[in-house]
Amino acid sequence: MKALVYHGPGNKAWEEKPRPVVLQPTDAVVRITKTTICGTDLHILKGDVPKVTDGRILGHEGVGVIEEVGAAVTGFKAGDRVIISCISSCGKCNYCKNGMYSHCENGGWILGHLIDGTQAEYVRIPFADNSLYHIPPGSDEEALVMLSDILPTGFECGVLNGQVKPGDTVAIVGAGPIGLATLLTAQFYSPAEIIMIDLDDNRLEVSKKFGATQVINSANENAIAKVKELTAGKGVDVAIEAVGVAASFVLCQMLVAPGGHIANIGVHGKSVELHLETLWSQNITITTRLVDTVTTPLLLKTVQSKKLSPSKLITHHFKLSDIIRAYDVFSNAGREKALKVILNNE
Amino acid sequence: MKALVYHGPGNKAWEEKPRPVVLQPTDAVVRITKTTICGTDLHILKGDVPKVTDGRILGHEGVGVIEEVGAAVTGFKAGDRVIISCISSCGKCNYCKNGMYSHCENGGWILGHLIDGTQAEYVRIPFADNSLYHIPPGSDEEALVMLSDILPTGFECGVLNGQVKPGDTVAIVGAGPIGLATLLTAQFYSPAEIIMIDLDDNRLEVSKKFGATQVINSANENAIAKVKELTAGKGVDVAIEAVGVAASFVLCQMLVAPGGHIANIGVHGKSVELHLETLWSQNITITTRLVDTVTTPLLLKTVQSKKLSPSKLITHHFKLSDIIRAYDVFSNAGREKALKVILNNE
Amino acid sequence: MKALVYHGPGNKAWEEKPRPVVLQPTDAVVRITKTTICGTDLHILKGDVPKVTDGRILGHEGVGVIEEVGAAVTGFKAGDRVIISCISSCGKCNYCKNGMYSHCENGGWILGHLIDGTQAEYVRIPFADNSLYHIPPGSDEEALVMLSDILPTGFECGVLNGQVKPGDTVAIVGAGPIGLATLLTAQFYSPAEIIMIDLDDNRLEVSKKFGATQVINSANENAIAKVKELTAGKGVDVAIEAVGVAASFVLCQMLVAPGGHIANIGVHGKSVELHLETLWSQNITITTRLVDTVTTPLLLKTVQSKKLSPSKLITHHFKLSDIIRAYDVFSNAGREKALKVILNNE
Amino acid sequence: MKALVYHGPGNKAWEEKPRPVVLQPTDAVVRITKTTICGTDLHILKGDVPKVTDGRILGHEGVGVIEEVGAAVTGFKAGDRVIISCISSCGKCNYCKNGMYSHCENGGWILGHLIDGTQAEYVRIPFADNSLYHIPPGSDEEALVMLSDILPTGFECGVLNGQVKPGDTVAIVGAGPIGLATLLTAQFYSPAEIIMIDLDDNRLEVSKKFGATQVINSANENAIAKVKELTAGKGVDVAIEAVGVAASFVLCQMLVAPGGHIANIGVHGKSVELHLETLWSQNITITTRLVDTVTTPLLLKTVQSKKLSPSKLITHHFKLSDIIRAYDVFSNAGREKALKVILNNE
Repeated sequence: MKALVYHGPGNKAWEEKPRPVVLQPTDAVVRITKTTICGTDLHILKGDVPKVTDGRILGHEGVGVIEEVGAAVTGFKAGDRVIISCISSCGKCNYCKNGMYSHCENGGWILGHLIDGTQAEYVRIPFADNSLYHIPPGSDEEALVMLSDILPTGFECGVLNGQVKPGDTVAIVGAGPIGLATLLTAQFYSPAEIIMIDLDDNRLEVSKKFGATQVINSANENAIAKVKELTAGKGVDVAIEAVGVAASFVLCQMLVAPGGHIANIGVHGKSVELHLETLWSQNITITTRLVDTVTTPLLLKTVQSKKLSPSKLITHHFKLSDIIRAYDVFSNAGREKALKVILNNE
Repeated sequence: MKALVYHGPGNKAWEEKPRPVVLQPTDAVVRITKTTICGTDLHILKGDVPKVTDGRILGHEGVGVIEEVGAAVTGFKAGDRVIISCISSCGKCNYCKNGMYSHCENGGWILGHLIDGTQAEYVRIPFADNSLYHIPPGSDEEALVMLSDILPTGFECGVLNGQVKPGDTVAIVGAGPIGLATLLTAQFYSPAEIIMIDLDDNRLEVSKKFGATQVINSANENAIAKVKELTAGKGVDVAIEAVGVAASFVLCQMLVAPGGHIANIGVHGKSVELHLETLWSQNITITTRLVDTVTTPLLLKTVQSKKLSPSKLITHHFKLSDIIRAYDVFSNAGREKALKVILNNE
Repeated sequence: MKALVYHGPGNKAWEEKPRPVVLQPTDAVVRITKTTICGTDLHILKGDVPKVTDGRILGHEGVGVIEEVGAAVTGFKAGDRVIISCISSCGKCNYCKNGMYSHCENGGWILGHLIDGTQAEYVRIPFADNSLYHIPPGSDEEALVMLSDILPTGFECGVLNGQVKPGDTVAIVGAGPIGLATLLTAQFYSPAEIIMIDLDDNRLEVSKKFGATQVINSANENAIAKVKELTAGKGVDVAIEAVGVAASFVLCQMLVAPGGHIANIGVHGKSVELHLETLWSQNITITTRLVDTVTTPLLLKTVQSKKLSPSKLITHHFKLSDIIRAYDVFSNAGREKALKVILNNE
Repeated sequence: MKALVYHGPGNKAWEEKPRPVVLQPTDAVVRITKTTICGTDLHILKGDVPKVTDGRILGHEGVGVIEEVGAAVTGFKAGDRVIISCISSCGKCNYCKNGMYSHCENGGWILGHLIDGTQAEYVRIPFADNSLYHIPPGSDEEALVMLSDILPTGFECGVLNGQVKPGDTVAIVGAGPIGLATLLTAQFYSPAEIIMIDLDDNRLEVSKKFGATQVINSANENAIAKVKELTAGKGVDVAIEAVGVAASFVLCQMLVAPGGHIANIGVHGKSVELHLETLWSQNITITTRLVDTVTTPLLLKTVQSKKLSPSKLITHHFKLSDIIRAYDVFSNAGREKALKVILNNE
């Protein structure tokens, strides 16, 4: 089969690889019908994720059709259409039992990382019963690719951890795909205001269409002053970091009101300054989280009932075999006005 | 009347001051029978709390007898024996309605800070109905002085915010009075292990008597290595910072297990380094809090039912008129093996 | 002034009464600008609420303008436009401190019940600081009358107690004003399905316009069978009783799925049968609640931000002096297709 | 092998049966070292549980040693010493993923019910990875038999569902083994008072030794009047039903204070009267639950750390081969002063 293979920093190729097979009784092999590219894949290609080694097939998102299942798989059979979760959950360890699949002792984020991933014609999925989800008949499968990673990430790490509630004022720092996924799912809880903060006017325009009530381009405006003005000096109930740099996490600390929440989503490469000299007395809660994908069934219900339209996040389409070109576009997301790209294999 | 008066950094005097009177219909005047000294009072005397100005009577803890109440006070009358809360709550603002008395728009921590305090023969208590608590007949009133501040602080900022639960492993960094109050109240939830970490062997000995299952003198031992050893490499479910310096907050970050809680109690004067480069993916919750004293009724019930013995925290007794000598002892807590001192005015 | 006065079962009159004055320092007197009639008022007129005695002015809802405040009122002054809460909260007792205003030891539901109410030109409001809310400039004041009782009732007793969450399937039994208020506020949490069950086709039509995804007229259809069909045999996550009769509470027991919630809103006059012989093993939570109005500030924010349009609930308008006629219409709600009526005094 | 076999109402025999073998890749076969008898087994023998058919080996509790595991079992191997959970959890279905193992679509309570149970020399355990727990070296294994069912039942259905918290007043109606397990685990949360109510003086004496602060023999005393007296007329924060008859559930309704919790543990055979005509306005939460055993790891930690001594519940010991005699004793628990009996197979 063909697959997108990592060959060390800066190098990747669409090349022939052996088709995966069932190795464990809990495995499934899935024929990929649609997949996508994640910002994390770009990090891997820069060499930022040293555990990814030469020869690895990238990708941890996608939908497809079951080709074959192991002897202990009871919930899926060949021919079933499935969403692949970016997190593999064994369902047996203490972390899995407590809904913290991200720290599964036998799985976690391994696809396109420690084992071969989804940017390929076929993929082996360990612990299939706990890591795949049935696609309801009649679904827009393209939209469901967004349930592999980006929507549970925004929802779990941002919205749930931030404890967004009706009437709240929420600030989301970063209007990239993850920030926008957070914006979409924050609206499940009817906050009064959602303020998007970014440096890119196009993404802020998109934010308005997606439901932001206020947008701030922090290149041109003092975001702190503007948020204080919008909140009668109080700050926001929930500040969500969706970038992964120190400046945006520090900005969240400046925006949050007493009693408020800071929910970090971003992947950080360096330590950040925490202003405990002011925050110690402000009754603040700060959370971090690697997505657990424990809310995938809930999110699927919101898609089915049209409370959530994930396809809004998709800006570009390619054939899977054109994935190198798709990477070019996604790598220049600003210039290309790209959010999520879909790679079709049907 | 006589009172302990602040006269700028390094200066205090036990001197004559006018006896307070009811100024607002919601005020009460209380004759102090027992009070104490807080670490915060030492900070004020060093000049660290600039809002405290020359002439201010210090103190924000104590028990006493109501002398007089304003026209709108309905829950208390002259002669009632009361616990004075360190936090004054108006009961009307949004913060008070939400149980966040620390940020009361009309009160908060004002006693011995913005208005005259309790290290005096009499004190005026604003919002008496919401800031005083009846002492049940037959109580050990000395013990109840610990309910003014130290026990709700350890319990709310450390134990409740840390979400201590049965079977947990808890580390408390700092075995001073606040850390020990946290140790006592953490046991309400039956954690499996409570590890106390401090630099003072005497305080660690006291910790063992108070229920610590493990103690670590981090001057002699590598606390991180020891905690990892005690927890099979996992770290603790809850790490509580009860000192107020950067090093101990950073230590908490090193001790906490994935999915765990870091509860800050300490008063910090500087920003600290937050290791988001590792914690971003660890599903951690970090909390800060200025004590709200919203749990005073609960704590009073635990004292009445002998689930909590606050008098353990008291090491020294003085007459109120000997308060200067009491400050000397409390300022040299290590040498004097002092925890809390009681100042009697009866 | 003129007021609607109760004169024993079946008797009421629009008659002259003395204008109320400030009696306690925490009182306010409010000039009513808009009020309404509640189903509870009809119960009182039937003689079902024996604590209401001859001569009592009815009504516990409304908006108005402050005429005068007592000496201890600090949050309001003459001329302020206010929402009157149906629950009077002293802000001092243990129940009020814990957000359970309905059981306030000094207040609770007293307006138009134990003291004179709002169906009058003026009303005395005890504990004004804790029982009134400022109307933001530019508000639709008519809509805000719905915040006195009906919306917090549906939201607190139905939606919050039922723990509605995104993706849930919710059944609401009863599509009267309270059931419809529940329907509107349930949508704050983006449930996948809301099934309204009633006997009145008009109210079910209204339900569809208000956001119900399914309606069942249980006079014509087997509601249990229909709900099982809609939920693949499982039942609903949340069943909300909004009528106050045994049959509808029993129906909720038949509709709820394992692990689900039954939230009772209705006022019941008789005991009901609880099917513990099946429910004992079904991991069910059943709640009851008299509205606390603790969410009024939150609801006000949702109205301001247009997440909630309470004016949808208003079907009829009258002059306050036409209140006898308004009672006639409201008493024949089915025939008149009446939901809430507004009585204007401006 | 030998096993205790059900032969229809009133009939049981200790007889030869085929030794179980691994049937599914997720199975384990366990050699029983210690087991016990549950009140439910007596119900089965009365014919109250019609799904139990002639020939079924009874028993759903016990500890033992793994004899053999299926190909997909990864957490256990032959020779491992294990606690057997009374609930079998597949770890894959929605209920299991949400921690509601009792409603597992593939398991739940099946041992000694729908499949052969633990009152035998060997037992087959389905879904071994999710239904067995490792016994730590050096444990008192007899005590751990109490973790199969009785302690998680009291803790989950009574204490957790009742939301017992520090300072609370708790009433437990029923001082049999389940009520006593509830009493032991309620103390994890340091309630101020635990009032045990029963008809048997011996069990009330035991209750006092186990930590009850008050006991009421409701045969001699008016339990309602006594509880009101003990609570200054208010009633209890948490009322726990641990019998399974209508009268005790109704008693709980009479005992609970406004805002309180009623947690049902008992197995009910008939519907009960729910006094909604008073409770509708009392802000009460009522819960039901079949034990999920989701807290077994937590309970094991509390046993290891000596916060819980389950062996207190054991009053009698027999050889497994004397199980018929053990049934006689357990069936006459009152006369024999029996709580839990241990059956040894070593």
